[in-house]
Amino acid sequence: MSTTREFAAIILAAGKGTRMKSDLHKVLHPIAGRAMLHHLMASVDELGPRHTVVVVGSGREQIEAAVAGRAATALQEPQLGTGHAVQQAQGSLAGFDGDVLVLYGDVPFVRAETMRRMLDRLHEADAPASVVLGFEPEDTLRYGRVIAAADGTIEKMVEHKDATEDERACRLCNSGLMAMRAADLFDLLGRVGNDNAAGEYYLVDVVNVARDDGRKSAVVVTDDPAEVAGINSRAELAGAEAQWQAFRREEAMANGASLRAPDTVFFSYDTQVGRDVTIEPNVVFGPGVTVADGAHIKAFCHIEGATIGEGCEVGPFARLRPGAVMERGAKVGNFVEMKKAVLGEGAKASHLTYLGDAEVGAGANIGAGTITCNYDGYFKHKTVIGERAFIGSNSALIAPVRIGADAIVAAGSAVSRDVDAGELRMVRAEQMVKPGWADRFHDAMKKKKAAEKKG
Amino acid sequence: MSTTREFAAIILAAGKGTRMKSDLHKVLHPIAGRAMLHHLMASVDELGPRHTVVVVGSGREQIEAAVAGRAATALQEPQLGTGHAVQQAQGSLAGFDGDVLVLYGDVPFVRAETMRRMLDRLHEADAPASVVLGFEPEDTLRYGRVIAAADGTIEKMVEHKDATEDERACRLCNSGLMAMRAADLFDLLGRVGNDNAAGEYYLVDVVNVARDDGRKSAVVVTDDPAEVAGINSRAELAGAEAQWQAFRREEAMANGASLRAPDTVFFSYDTQVGRDVTIEPNVVFGPGVTVADGAHIKAFCHIEGATIGEGCEVGPFARLRPGAVMERGAKVGNFVEMKKAVLGEGAKASHLTYLGDAEVGAGANIGAGTITCNYDGYFKHKTVIGERAFIGSNSALIAPVRIGADAIVAAGSAVSRDVDAGELRMVRAEQMVKPGWADRFHDAMKKKKAAEKKG
Amino acid sequence: MSTTREFAAIILAAGKGTRMKSDLHKVLHPIAGRAMLHHLMASVDELGPRHTVVVVGSGREQIEAAVAGRAATALQEPQLGTGHAVQQAQGSLAGFDGDVLVLYGDVPFVRAETMRRMLDRLHEADAPASVVLGFEPEDTLRYGRVIAAADGTIEKMVEHKDATEDERACRLCNSGLMAMRAADLFDLLGRVGNDNAAGEYYLVDVVNVARDDGRKSAVVVTDDPAEVAGINSRAELAGAEAQWQAFRREEAMANGASLRAPDTVFFSYDTQVGRDVTIEPNVVFGPGVTVADGAHIKAFCHIEGATIGEGCEVGPFARLRPGAVMERGAKVGNFVEMKKAVLGEGAKASHLTYLGDAEVGAGANIGAGTITCNYDGYFKHKTVIGERAFIGSNSALIAPVRIGADAIVAAGSAVSRDVDAGELRMVRAEQMVKPGWADRFHDAMKKKKAAEKKG
Repeated sequence: MSTTREFAAIILAAGKGTRMKSDLHKVLHPIAGRAMLHHLMASVDELGPRHTVVVVGSGREQIEAAVAGRAATALQEPQLGTGHAVQQAQGSLAGFDGDVLVLYGDVPFVRAETMRRMLDRLHEADAPASVVLGFEPEDTLRYGRVIAAADGTIEKMVEHKDATEDERACRLCNSGLMAMRAADLFDLLGRVGNDNAAGEYYLVDVVNVARDDGRKSAVVVTDDPAEVAGINSRAELAGAEAQWQAFRREEAMANGASLRAPDTVFFSYDTQVGRDVTIEPNVVFGPGVTVADGAHIKAFCHIEGATIGEGCEVGPFARLRPGAVMERGAKVGNFVEMKKAVLGEGAKASHLTYLGDAEVGAGANIGAGTITCNYDGYFKHKTVIGERAFIGSNSALIAPVRIGADAIVAAGSAVSRDVDAGELRMVRAEQMVKPGWADRFHDAMKKKKAAEKKG
Repeated sequence: MSTTREFAAIILAAGKGTRMKSDLHKVLHPIAGRAMLHHLMASVDELGPRHTVVVVGSGREQIEAAVAGRAATALQEPQLGTGHAVQQAQGSLAGFDGDVLVLYGDVPFVRAETMRRMLDRLHEADAPASVVLGFEPEDTLRYGRVIAAADGTIEKMVEHKDATEDERACRLCNSGLMAMRAADLFDLLGRVGNDNAAGEYYLVDVVNVARDDGRKSAVVVTDDPAEVAGINSRAELAGAEAQWQAFRREEAMANGASLRAPDTVFFSYDTQVGRDVTIEPNVVFGPGVTVADGAHIKAFCHIEGATIGEGCEVGPFARLRPGAVMERGAKVGNFVEMKKAVLGEGAKASHLTYLGDAEVGAGANIGAGTITCNYDGYFKHKTVIGERAFIGSNSALIAPVRIGADAIVAAGSAVSRDVDAGELRMVRAEQMVKPGWADRFHDAMKKKKAAEKKG
Repeated sequence: MSTTREFAAIILAAGKGTRMKSDLHKVLHPIAGRAMLHHLMASVDELGPRHTVVVVGSGREQIEAAVAGRAATALQEPQLGTGHAVQQAQGSLAGFDGDVLVLYGDVPFVRAETMRRMLDRLHEADAPASVVLGFEPEDTLRYGRVIAAADGTIEKMVEHKDATEDERACRLCNSGLMAMRAADLFDLLGRVGNDNAAGEYYLVDVVNVARDDGRKSAVVVTDDPAEVAGINSRAELAGAEAQWQAFRREEAMANGASLRAPDTVFFSYDTQVGRDVTIEPNVVFGPGVTVADGAHIKAFCHIEGATIGEGCEVGPFARLRPGAVMERGAKVGNFVEMKKAVLGEGAKASHLTYLGDAEVGAGANIGAGTITCNYDGYFKHKTVIGERAFIGSNSALIAPVRIGADAIVAAGSAVSRDVDAGELRMVRAEQMVKPGWADRFHDAMKKKKAAEKKG
């Protein structure tokens, strides 16, 4: 049964994240090229929330900047527990009477489908006062237990330390994530106390307050404990990255890409990879990359913000930066960098080249060691190279400059003026010949070296 | 007991391989730089077959091209099961009365020794009508069982779904590989029916037909289930690659090479590595590479079709392409590419260089940023550099060109004419000096930048 | 109870290490950039030994060179067992009456703390004649057992093959490492016999000889079996490297560095990494590297002997060699090599550059393709670039040369004379224009190509 009621997401992100030892707020650390908070918000957005409120505390400026325009923020100061944190969002939800989902910024991989199940459960026939997301971890020691009936209604929530032996044998644990109606949430929270060792207000206690009112709560269980794993240290961050990458690599292979050594390929959250794409070992994708069918990414490539056309060849040792566009069948070889540059159909830049702020026409050949001199220290300028043009090796193209179609630039030329179509441009001094000079130099230097050793 | 009877190999490769999601035929996907079909054929070739027949169907042009001159092909159209597939090879084996081995193009790592054992078994005293290759997988669920006596004669072949509980407890499974005398094979196959759910003719049914004739079959068992693993998806392809690489890395270390991080070194099927070779992390070998004793391959190298002499140093970040030859003690450094180029004994190309279609004499020093301009857009030309020559940095050698022994090319020169031995060649314009110009430029640009910001 | 008695370390390193298949002595093979013998000596040095004696045999010249000035060596020739090996060190310890620790060059990761515990145990109340280091391996099959009382006094040392079933059930094994008073050691060793299958003198037999004297020995147990793992093959060497790296990566993350893919980052024994440092996949650190807080090492970097300042950006595809110093906020980009070069605060060398023997002032901008020509074939020369100078792309700076502050070098210039502050230097020939030449060339070449195909 799917509900069409509106919902709001409250994301708790006030904690310091001390174990990260970082000036960057914990929830802004990236996984697969995207902040963990943004991973979570993307899943929330799949469900179309009416409101998203991020509860901030330490480092709140960073989070405010990161969610600006996408979510409201509410300040929790001081920080008196999860229940208290959720209460701070009440102002942002004034007048809102839909459902509320409580999430955690450092639990980024909850699936939209699981959130949906939690919200839907609120509206099933028994209409529970709250819905808890439960999971069954390998190691239950650190978690509170959810003691539930077969129909998912909760009999008791109990902390590990307070649990009886029978209760400890129960493997169903509390993830901390909850769904409630907005009206219930703030009413019940208002009655939660802080009579515990830490003197904090715990969100989960709404289950008990509701029970005192004679109302049941329910548990929804995820079959993937990884979904609710929290990230509290750099090691856990690396672990989450590894898990994400493993999943994504399997997916790319299932969709028809060959990864010779999957463990050495790193995708970003939004990498698009086509069919019959070959990816050799050691390729790193930053955000914003699309690889069309039949492209071949050779070993040791670093690619971000780039569009790689059908049948293109890239690398080894290529670096494509944002704005790099390779059209069908284009080729970028070793030690070549592209940035804001288009390489036309079938065009080639095979070796030791920098193409920045450039347009290269179809079929053009960019010789080894070519540099587009796009920067004068103050402004960036553009290089335009015509179709089938041939840029001789070790040339410098001093932008702004245009090279016409079919034109040839002689090797070693520093081209500072436009070259017309079909024209040859050569910028080269005379071949100065000094017969015997090298022999004399070698003699003199050998003597000097010998003298140094004696001296 | 070894037989000297002739044998033919029939390799089944008609299937679509739909799960690969590829335009390339499944059996042509590479592992360790060689198509899986070619891995299998190489093992067959170790035993000197009289005939090799590949049964093709979908994508047959690709396979025909891949085996041209090495094997016959036979078309299976439509595809009515493995027995039917083998029958299609009968025409190619007309008049042949030796033994036949039936293999699968997507089961590429059967060892020659195992094939030999299967063929030999046909001629042991009890002369079985057919020999089945059995194996004991971790998970037997997907396989038919071979119910065999202690002496290896087969009592019954049974599909998992048709097996009794006792039969299911038997761990010996049918790999599908078989050996038979040619005469038996086609006679028995002719009597195999297709009265089964799929309406197909199964090769394994020859065991039953032979039994109806009162003839026994036998099983030969491999102790390595990996040998008969089939490859049906890109994930399985990657898994096979990983397994192959793990084996090869252990072998390289056992033979006296140091791999600092074995998991990051990727060999090709034919890579030759000597003793006291050091290979740092992240090195990828394409086909055709020989590395002599004492060579040191630093991190991040990509090497294919290259010969690396004794004591050479390569990398980090070097790329050797086909035809690269480094003689004893030569050195190739970072961001250097070699292609069809010989680097003489002790010669060095340490940084940012492209050597293509070149011969470099012993002891020569190729400066940073040197480019051999070997291509004019139509033809490739050769650069020859003499012994002990010194090529100044950032030079372009415009081929065809010869630099004599002990000659010096001044830094930044584009050399378009031959340089004699002992000669200095300098191609450089005058040093044009404009005092104060830069200061005025900075002022002007700063004003322009400021104006832009206002505007 | 800590002792202040002096101690000597005897390190056994006479064995051939045949399984390494190497011309390099086994104990000199590196792990994390340092010879395994030097790892061990570093731990010994933490405790301030009075003497360190390395017992050498095969390949002794290599070891003598490796420990010169840090340890004495004693020759064992022929090699008649561990007891015999230790006896050879007696001459080097003449007059020394402190304690002796016996270690093995191929067991490099014994912690100083463990050595300390062994030495201290000698001086506890029961004053044992010798102290054996015991451990509990996963697989006990290969090791002799230490049969000990609850208080750690040894009842019996027994080889696996001689052990009773009860003794085999004991999991405490003999690592071979021992501590003894010098006087006891050489006295007891003098009475050890060689009446065994190999005809060798075993160090461990001092326990028995002492017992015959009515003296007890004791065992100290390490809780980390990896500490006493011996390294006898390249595969074990790689295994030790992997274990070391795994530990170091965890440590770096715990200290506040982000490693996106920890398994692909390789540290050296002395790598220093600050807080909020980001290290992307595939980074290799050689010895002598310091990375300050907030630095960002992008993928595919190779860094040795370098100092990376606060907030610097490195890579991808950067290579920093010994003597590279990046000051605060400096940036080194792709395909850039630095060697004995300082890049001042905020200075940038973003692409395809070689900076060798150079000083670059704060805020300078080094264009793509810049090469410092530091070598004339005999001597290295220096390049000095002033603050805020702008080096145009594809320039060659022919050292020795100085570029003044705020100076500009035009793109493509080979600069052989000093450039003053605020000056523009341009070294560039005339733009030679040949209209239509390229069109005629294309026509001629196409005809030639066509003719070749016909011919």
